[in-house]
Amino acid sequence: MVRVAIIGASGYTGLEAIEILLRHPQAELTYLTALPEECGPAAEVFGQLRGRLDMPIEPLDMNKLAEKAEAVLCCLPHKVSMGFVPKLLAAGLKVVDFSADYRLRDAAVYEKYYVPHTDKENLAHAVYGLPEMNRKQIPSARLIANPGCFPTGALLALLPVLREGLIQPKGIIVNAVTGVSGGGKNPSPVFHFPAMNENLLPYGVGTHRHMPEMEQVASDAAGKPVEILFQPHVGPFDRGILSSVYGEPAKAVTSAQLLELYRSFYQNEPFVQVLSKPPALKHVAKSNYCHLFPTVVKGRLVIFSAIDNLIKGASGQAIQNLNLLYGFEETLGLK
Amino acid sequence: MVRVAIIGASGYTGLEAIEILLRHPQAELTYLTALPEECGPAAEVFGQLRGRLDMPIEPLDMNKLAEKAEAVLCCLPHKVSMGFVPKLLAAGLKVVDFSADYRLRDAAVYEKYYVPHTDKENLAHAVYGLPEMNRKQIPSARLIANPGCFPTGALLALLPVLREGLIQPKGIIVNAVTGVSGGGKNPSPVFHFPAMNENLLPYGVGTHRHMPEMEQVASDAAGKPVEILFQPHVGPFDRGILSSVYGEPAKAVTSAQLLELYRSFYQNEPFVQVLSKPPALKHVAKSNYCHLFPTVVKGRLVIFSAIDNLIKGASGQAIQNLNLLYGFEETLGLK
Amino acid sequence: MVRVAIIGASGYTGLEAIEILLRHPQAELTYLTALPEECGPAAEVFGQLRGRLDMPIEPLDMNKLAEKAEAVLCCLPHKVSMGFVPKLLAAGLKVVDFSADYRLRDAAVYEKYYVPHTDKENLAHAVYGLPEMNRKQIPSARLIANPGCFPTGALLALLPVLREGLIQPKGIIVNAVTGVSGGGKNPSPVFHFPAMNENLLPYGVGTHRHMPEMEQVASDAAGKPVEILFQPHVGPFDRGILSSVYGEPAKAVTSAQLLELYRSFYQNEPFVQVLSKPPALKHVAKSNYCHLFPTVVKGRLVIFSAIDNLIKGASGQAIQNLNLLYGFEETLGLK
Amino acid sequence: MVRVAIIGASGYTGLEAIEILLRHPQAELTYLTALPEECGPAAEVFGQLRGRLDMPIEPLDMNKLAEKAEAVLCCLPHKVSMGFVPKLLAAGLKVVDFSADYRLRDAAVYEKYYVPHTDKENLAHAVYGLPEMNRKQIPSARLIANPGCFPTGALLALLPVLREGLIQPKGIIVNAVTGVSGGGKNPSPVFHFPAMNENLLPYGVGTHRHMPEMEQVASDAAGKPVEILFQPHVGPFDRGILSSVYGEPAKAVTSAQLLELYRSFYQNEPFVQVLSKPPALKHVAKSNYCHLFPTVVKGRLVIFSAIDNLIKGASGQAIQNLNLLYGFEETLGLK
Repeated sequence: MVRVAIIGASGYTGLEAIEILLRHPQAELTYLTALPEECGPAAEVFGQLRGRLDMPIEPLDMNKLAEKAEAVLCCLPHKVSMGFVPKLLAAGLKVVDFSADYRLRDAAVYEKYYVPHTDKENLAHAVYGLPEMNRKQIPSARLIANPGCFPTGALLALLPVLREGLIQPKGIIVNAVTGVSGGGKNPSPVFHFPAMNENLLPYGVGTHRHMPEMEQVASDAAGKPVEILFQPHVGPFDRGILSSVYGEPAKAVTSAQLLELYRSFYQNEPFVQVLSKPPALKHVAKSNYCHLFPTVVKGRLVIFSAIDNLIKGASGQAIQNLNLLYGFEETLGLK
Repeated sequence: MVRVAIIGASGYTGLEAIEILLRHPQAELTYLTALPEECGPAAEVFGQLRGRLDMPIEPLDMNKLAEKAEAVLCCLPHKVSMGFVPKLLAAGLKVVDFSADYRLRDAAVYEKYYVPHTDKENLAHAVYGLPEMNRKQIPSARLIANPGCFPTGALLALLPVLREGLIQPKGIIVNAVTGVSGGGKNPSPVFHFPAMNENLLPYGVGTHRHMPEMEQVASDAAGKPVEILFQPHVGPFDRGILSSVYGEPAKAVTSAQLLELYRSFYQNEPFVQVLSKPPALKHVAKSNYCHLFPTVVKGRLVIFSAIDNLIKGASGQAIQNLNLLYGFEETLGLK
Repeated sequence: MVRVAIIGASGYTGLEAIEILLRHPQAELTYLTALPEECGPAAEVFGQLRGRLDMPIEPLDMNKLAEKAEAVLCCLPHKVSMGFVPKLLAAGLKVVDFSADYRLRDAAVYEKYYVPHTDKENLAHAVYGLPEMNRKQIPSARLIANPGCFPTGALLALLPVLREGLIQPKGIIVNAVTGVSGGGKNPSPVFHFPAMNENLLPYGVGTHRHMPEMEQVASDAAGKPVEILFQPHVGPFDRGILSSVYGEPAKAVTSAQLLELYRSFYQNEPFVQVLSKPPALKHVAKSNYCHLFPTVVKGRLVIFSAIDNLIKGASGQAIQNLNLLYGFEETLGLK
Repeated sequence: MVRVAIIGASGYTGLEAIEILLRHPQAELTYLTALPEECGPAAEVFGQLRGRLDMPIEPLDMNKLAEKAEAVLCCLPHKVSMGFVPKLLAAGLKVVDFSADYRLRDAAVYEKYYVPHTDKENLAHAVYGLPEMNRKQIPSARLIANPGCFPTGALLALLPVLREGLIQPKGIIVNAVTGVSGGGKNPSPVFHFPAMNENLLPYGVGTHRHMPEMEQVASDAAGKPVEILFQPHVGPFDRGILSSVYGEPAKAVTSAQLLELYRSFYQNEPFVQVLSKPPALKHVAKSNYCHLFPTVVKGRLVIFSAIDNLIKGASGQAIQNLNLLYGFEETLGLK
């Protein structure tokens, strides 16, 4: 049994993590924190928790945290996170960090897309928490950088062909559409219901911060530099990311061969399902699964990937990592 | 040809009014104003207007206004409106006011639900702009109080039985569901897409400001005090108000008789359609029509009413009033 | 451990029941049946189940059923159900029936709203499975009539005032809005996405079959005949029923007293939450909870009730009943 | 004044065409036909038309048609259309055909994706009705092949770079998401509200019939063979197509140069707006406009295009073509 705290518990990923931990047989939720103005009984902050969780969300107290928990899900935004993580690690806690702060191995790349990095020491030891790629390194880590939602969907689509050298490392396009929960809990004009409903729009054209993250991990997987053009869109639904990935094959391959490769590559993965038809976003909503459909169209690789952005793209994957960290069955709380 | 200005043009009712005026053969849109921070080219403020309207929305300049327009659609919120309307009238303009400031004849009632009334003089001369009730008084008015969205839907449902004395004046229930555009353009936690999508909730329980408005007008129509329990809800769609109205008959009536009464009562109304089956909100979206279905269930009157909250419930009705004010065909720009 | 079969597993309630049973520590899902044309691997029929359930949905074989299961969730529609239930009972199985066939004690009422009743014998012994009302009778039953979705929401709103004699037995209005999943899985013009999206409409005016069910159970609870005007609507969302209930108090009561009564009445109920503010449908989605808000407006009782139509209104309540039937903790699989 | 009939008026494109013609100052709607089972008063078939159009939709009578109309909007599906068009032309009518039957100049390509072509004679004379490309040929045509919805959005995105030789003719990717109205009015499991709501899915992978249409027209525009990988998706909203188009530049170009090219290319087009930021689908809903945003990301051309699939992608464009056919102002009824 591991005692788990959630820092930054008042947002959407916090709620998802709470819900999963309430079902988890080996993890006990012991402490929830948030900014003072977002505190209160968890069941008031999230009406969904009424009758299910009698625990406050309270301002962070490091002593209390160290006393109450062994592991921390750190759901803070980038920049804020690296202000806290060193203290959490110093207090002997294991940390799964949801922010981007420990995902980009190269601090220079981080600083280009984000802000100056203030915790390069721990950055050096963080493990990128994509279990399908780094399952061996995760158990011995003390700091897991939980992958971004878009990178999770795109990388699961690309891993088999990257590993097998079956895709050209240039010219890969990731066209993705996310549900609005991906934009977080803070109201804004663009996500106001009458603005977003019945709408669909591209954003972050050429500038989205998940692009360098994808490229770094894809390059690691391929063993050579990989260039990805990532284009996010947001659509009028709550949850999920559908990624449509296009690339040039490095050698001729048929749809049947590609499908077989993906099935073989992912055959032991508990949360990746390889389909023989296009996925539907709704089939992965509220689940930790990734549904993939790889095929060949006009000689090009076309791979579709569907995940829930808040589960496999955030809190579910974090708990999958937690399970690995503590030697639990990887699927606990997640099936 | 009448030259029309819109004050407070940057909100949802402003956009609807602009769209209608662009189609109007006898009205010319000449001046658009808003708060400084909401100004800019109309086609930037509303992407829908690109290529269709080359006009700025600019801070209000009273001299410019008086020069450019004969009539004003005043789309300001309550309290703000009564600060401007006296000046508009003093400048010789005719005004259709969208706020609640001139709807409640009794300033004491207004002050109970809103704020102290600062323009009782003009209040005394304002005409409540529900054409189906006050078509005769509207043409000679200088200040029209454009009805609230919920009152429009509820009153059109009730007018025939109120006028005919067919409904008990106590115990009337108006259960209404509005689309989210009814809450305006400002982002808020409750109308944030991931909060409002797939949601439905009651609000303003016992306190909604449209309740006294309904009661005043219903009492006028009945010629005696009418009491209405009005309960609004908001649902996950952009536009429209569906009102389900329940009341006790004052004397026995069959469904067929009731339907016949409504058909007869509204037979010359250009924008009221009496159906012999329940209305669908989507059939009135983007239109100035009201669809009604009156029937009797277990001896009770049950009347359904569907309108578009932004058109018949606001900007469409305002232009219907404008047409009456200027002696135009009542349906110009609206069919 | 109880072995459970689902008959009629290919619809929405079937999927919900499967999902709950997969999480249930004391129930084992052993057999799934449907009409031949709806059979296949469960993970093909429901893409959501990929990787989570490796079991076919197959045509019903009574011998196989009797061998594989002790308890049956019978998710068949009315009329079809009473063709099978006698055989299930004869085979010694305990049955939770989702249809209307065993809900109306008085076969004459059933026959007025449905079809001739062909199993009056078992009808006489069926227990209406609303645990908040019949918790004592349920454990010893062999046939549970699982309540309808609308009656569940409405009755939980009304039980306290009916039991306490605080509401007039005439003139009760239940205005309810359901999500589209309430209409089942079969495509139809009215539930075609472009027809239903951005829409809201009343239906079943004066004729809905859940009206006599509500009246029977409400009358039982009150100990005298209760008359309810029930008006359903369907809105553009997947799940949930929001009921807005209006009634006359039998004696003067304040909002505070009413709230206190509800809190006291439901204090030991694991799935009923009494709120001091209006409920939001989204807070009960995917859960077995009912959120209630009782208040007084203008001297009338106004009670809001929110449930998930497929969970507390169907499959969740069925498993709550199953837990009671087998002496399990009532909340197993449901929290 | 031209008298216009609509054949196949009972579907979504029929309704849109009716609505536009009701506002059109030079066209008179005189005759509406559909299959017998879809006939009835137009205001019954489409509740939106109540009070606005008093005309039946009736089974087609060729004599009546020839007598009542000069021009026909033929909203029939492919294969059916080419059974009627020869008769319409023989009767001296001008025809704007919504089907695919006259879009693919090469009957062999048509027959590969559709069915045997039975009217090659008229196929030879049909003009592809994309005014931005064929404005000169349209006025003298007797048969206009109205473009498909996806090709309209994609081709408007590509025309400038195709014409200028700025894009490589191979490797173009068109990733598009359509609203559900694109799938027509017939209910189906995939477009059942609870299936499609909160969903997003790719379809027609490698096989969509709009792919050869795009390639033919793009090749015409480029003056050489162009290969396009077109991948459609459908999302949970009513209207609109957002196309995200990716291609290799044929020579180096900056974002600013590309934007300037598009502005210049489309400067006189009444319905194409070139933006300096990504378009939002909602801004073109219910309009005949196309919003484009061309840019360069990592050396690749990325062009976003937003249209309303039923207006610019069907009925609006048809009436734009009708205006050209009759020498009317091109924007009549459409602004």
